[in-house]
Amino acid sequence: MSVIDVGAVLATLERTPAALRAMLTGLPAELVHATEGGESWSPFDIVGHLIHGERTDWIPRLQIILAEGRSEFERFDRFAQFEASQGNSVEGLLEEFETLRAANLAELREMLVEGIDLDAEGTHPEFGRVTTGELLATWATHDLGHIAQVARVMAKHFGKHAGPWAEYLPILRDRG
Amino acid sequence: MSVIDVGAVLATLERTPAALRAMLTGLPAELVHATEGGESWSPFDIVGHLIHGERTDWIPRLQIILAEGRSEFERFDRFAQFEASQGNSVEGLLEEFETLRAANLAELREMLVEGIDLDAEGTHPEFGRVTTGELLATWATHDLGHIAQVARVMAKHFGKHAGPWAEYLPILRDRG
Repeated sequence: MSVIDVGAVLATLERTPAALRAMLTGLPAELVHATEGGESWSPFDIVGHLIHGERTDWIPRLQIILAEGRSEFERFDRFAQFEASQGNSVEGLLEEFETLRAANLAELREMLVEGIDLDAEGTHPEFGRVTTGELLATWATHDLGHIAQVARVMAKHFGKHAGPWAEYLPILRDRG
Repeated sequence: MSVIDVGAVLATLERTPAALRAMLTGLPAELVHATEGGESWSPFDIVGHLIHGERTDWIPRLQIILAEGRSEFERFDRFAQFEASQGNSVEGLLEEFETLRAANLAELREMLVEGIDLDAEGTHPEFGRVTTGELLATWATHDLGHIAQVARVMAKHFGKHAGPWAEYLPILRDRG
C-alpha cells in the first residue's frame, strides 16, 4: 500500500473547522439539534465530540507513540460531549473547536519539522498494534466522517418531506 | 406529516457554497479529483453537478409548477458536468456555483414574498405528481447529500491507510 500523504492530511484537518462553521453558524435550532432518532447525535453533539477528540485523543496519542513507542493509549470517551457541551451554543463550540484544532495543528507541524516516523508503533486498548501513519489517516477520516454525519442528520430532517424524490436521495438510506 | 419549514430550507441552501468552498478551495489535486472508483464522482465532478442543477433544475421546475400547475418537467441530465466543467479549476466552479446559487435564492425569496403554494403540483417525468413543498425539501436534501458525498470520497482516500481503525469509521462503508 502506498504511503500516506501527510500534506493531504494536514490540508484536510485544517479545513474542518471552517467547513463546520459554514454549515452550522446561525443555523435554526431545529437543525442544530436535529438527530436521526434514538441515541443518535445532533450536529451540536458532533462538534462537542470533535472538541473532546482535540483535547484527549489525536495529539496526546501521537505523543505517546513518539515519546515511548508501543505504549498503550487511554480509552477515548465517545460520550464526554454530553456533559461538556451543556449550556454552550453551537457557535461557542465551533470557536472552541477551531482554537483547539489550530493549536494541535501547530503542534503537529512542529513534530513534522522534527521528523515523524510514520511506522512508529503504539498499542490501542482494543485492537493492539497501530502506527503513527494510521493514526494520522484516521484523524482525517474521522473528521470527514463527522462532516458527512452533520450533512446526513440535516438531510434526514428535510428528506421526510421530499415525497417521491426520496427514492433518488441515497443519503436518506445511509446509516453512518 | 408536518409542513416543511421554508426558513430552514433557505438557511441550508444559502450555506452550501461556503461549506464546499471551506472544504475544497486550495485542496491538493489528489483529493479534488479523488473518486470512489469506477464511474463514481470526484469532489470536482460534484460541484459541476450542483452548478448544472442551479442552471436547469430547481428554480426552473419551481417556475413551471407555479406558472402552469401540473406541468411536466424536462429530464435532468445527471452527467452534464463532465463536459461543462472541462478545463475549469475547482475554485472556478465554486465561484460559479456561489454566483448561481445567490441569484436563485434571490429569485426564491421574491417568490416567497409573493407567496408560494407549497401544495401546488407539477408532473415529474418519472414518478408523476410532486408538489412545490417536496421540491424545496428535495433541493435542501440534495445539497446535503452531495456535501456528505464530498466528505465520503475524501474519507475513503485516507481510510485505506487507517489500519485497524477502519472498523471504527463507518463512513468507509457508506455507499451513497
